[in-house]
Amino acid sequence: MKFTCNQQTLTKALNTVSKAVSNRTTLPILKGILLEAKANGKLIMTASDLEISIQKETEAYVEEEGSIVVISKLFGDIIRKLPNEEISIESNEENSVLIKTSSSEFTVVSFPVDEFPKIGEKEEIKDDLIFDKEIFKDMVRKTSFAASIDESKGILVGILTEIGREKVSMVALDGFRLALANENMTSAEENKFIISAKIMNEISKIISDDETDDDIRILMGEKKAVFNIGTTEVILRLMEGEFIKYKEIIPKNNDINVIIGKSILLESIERASLLAKEGKNNLIKMTIKNNLLTITSRSEEGNVKEEIIMEKTGDDLEIGFNSKFIIDVLKAIDDEEISMNFKTGTSPCVVKPVEGNSYEYLILPVRIPSM
Amino acid sequence: MKFTCNQQTLTKALNTVSKAVSNRTTLPILKGILLEAKANGKLIMTASDLEISIQKETEAYVEEEGSIVVISKLFGDIIRKLPNEEISIESNEENSVLIKTSSSEFTVVSFPVDEFPKIGEKEEIKDDLIFDKEIFKDMVRKTSFAASIDESKGILVGILTEIGREKVSMVALDGFRLALANENMTSAEENKFIISAKIMNEISKIISDDETDDDIRILMGEKKAVFNIGTTEVILRLMEGEFIKYKEIIPKNNDINVIIGKSILLESIERASLLAKEGKNNLIKMTIKNNLLTITSRSEEGNVKEEIIMEKTGDDLEIGFNSKFIIDVLKAIDDEEISMNFKTGTSPCVVKPVEGNSYEYLILPVRIPSM
Repeated sequence: MKFTCNQQTLTKALNTVSKAVSNRTTLPILKGILLEAKANGKLIMTASDLEISIQKETEAYVEEEGSIVVISKLFGDIIRKLPNEEISIESNEENSVLIKTSSSEFTVVSFPVDEFPKIGEKEEIKDDLIFDKEIFKDMVRKTSFAASIDESKGILVGILTEIGREKVSMVALDGFRLALANENMTSAEENKFIISAKIMNEISKIISDDETDDDIRILMGEKKAVFNIGTTEVILRLMEGEFIKYKEIIPKNNDINVIIGKSILLESIERASLLAKEGKNNLIKMTIKNNLLTITSRSEEGNVKEEIIMEKTGDDLEIGFNSKFIIDVLKAIDDEEISMNFKTGTSPCVVKPVEGNSYEYLILPVRIPSM
Repeated sequence: MKFTCNQQTLTKALNTVSKAVSNRTTLPILKGILLEAKANGKLIMTASDLEISIQKETEAYVEEEGSIVVISKLFGDIIRKLPNEEISIESNEENSVLIKTSSSEFTVVSFPVDEFPKIGEKEEIKDDLIFDKEIFKDMVRKTSFAASIDESKGILVGILTEIGREKVSMVALDGFRLALANENMTSAEENKFIISAKIMNEISKIISDDETDDDIRILMGEKKAVFNIGTTEVILRLMEGEFIKYKEIIPKNNDINVIIGKSILLESIERASLLAKEGKNNLIKMTIKNNLLTITSRSEEGNVKEEIIMEKTGDDLEIGFNSKFIIDVLKAIDDEEISMNFKTGTSPCVVKPVEGNSYEYLILPVRIPSM
């Protein structure tokens, strides 16, 4: 194998594929990146762990076809630190690669291609979907934080995506809060799939790095899906099992309705959290009375009272929350005004836009001890 | 005690004094900040650990004189998160402080002033010195990295400052390298003192934050010194003992002289370091031959050869270095061209400006095993 490629082009491609390199293993081959130089002037780089495989195609001047596996970290560090000029990469006999520029010459170990894991192999395609890039990224940002990060929680680490003919939804929940995002998007096919929030976030990052204007193309198989993002291809394992029937959880008759400024509420809750460390559940109490929201909390170090003017319809209410769960939600919202709907001090609160339903968050309250 | 002060003013002052708050102790009073409101409209904040005391004076509207100790982290977090408006601070009976703005009200624990450590107490002044702010910062940046970070090394954790009538020097060394900075500066008094590099770096940060144009005024006592930086006063313990006779260490007859570009050398050494992990001493080999500097290194993962054109007078040479020590030096230098002077492969290298002597670095070589 022998090819020449520009330093910046190689660096960008390595930054993308290296997201799939496992850092949990000590087996060198699993920390590898597969380089394939093709006669048609294409260089294909691939990295895989057990859940995801990322492949990136770039242009290169290929003098001799071939393929090789290099250590991702070492190879990436070398390429990143070389000056922005043409880099020649050539496989030697005896499992090594020669990396050369005008003044630098590296010889580094390589591994035979047949040891590289084949988890990136594709399946028969059942469905072929198109997804708008910006909508995808925005919906992942609005929902992924609500998924569980505890791998033992099974399906709760995933985001359910439901694609209809006219609209698309994503939903994540961890037992304490639920995040639902809805957007208008036309699709030729209906579909639904569950992918871990971690992988959905990786795909969002790849979308952000992608310089093409193309939509995402998703090829669905039985157990795997292939995401095509510009010249990057992501092959991932779909999560199996039934997602929680989330529509049944969202309360429909929360008739205490508060309209309030998001930033002022976020800042007040962040301040109240400074004295809400007791018992580690970040307890804050909200008192909704007439047109005033009062937020209080206390710890051994002191206590705090925050007051915010708001609009309210319905009864007065006292309710406790883990402040972290409200802060996460408010940080995910772009709107300056939001609607918060309550029923009782022991039933979930729903946070929505003042108009429309582009997001819906459900937050479970926390019982208030005598405070 | 009762005073009102602007949020931004308080935040800036807290950022300065909190540099002296110890985070190693579990005794709340040692994590405290002393607030003193004076009848003349001055608020004085003080924090101390065992080595350094920082005091900052700001303007405040004082309604009632008094003083109190608050928990630095909690008080700082609250003030930083409040909106930019006037904050009222009032001591209550029963060891607590009330912090109030238009919509927030905090009550936090406080401590009696007499429990606050008195290590900031001053001594009789023996000398009164003036030091240019920018020169001080620049010289600390050029030398402090070469001091030892190992507290058990005694005087080697310090920087020796020598103030003459016409020039000033700072020097630090750790047994492997030495950093010497010289500047022209007139002083009415001669003096020398040793202060730990850690504290010298803290003083540099305070200088960077200071908004006045004033020079630093240093009041020297027997065992302590007081640095006046704008409205900030730093009281610190001087290090005792004799500094190493550094002038005797710096070789005078290194007659192999290389003139080379600093950035290109730094980048080459950084690349070579990627394959210099063996035995953890970051060994790189420099071969100086005719007008070519070749840098090589190797590890189990591969090897590298870097070539740089240079100007040389004197013999050819092979010499090994711990790449970290050269990288530290090159990063501290602003010049684009530098002079490196060698004698043999086993004697120290001296790095200097091509003209003048504003810095002088000495780096010990490392023995090259057969490689």
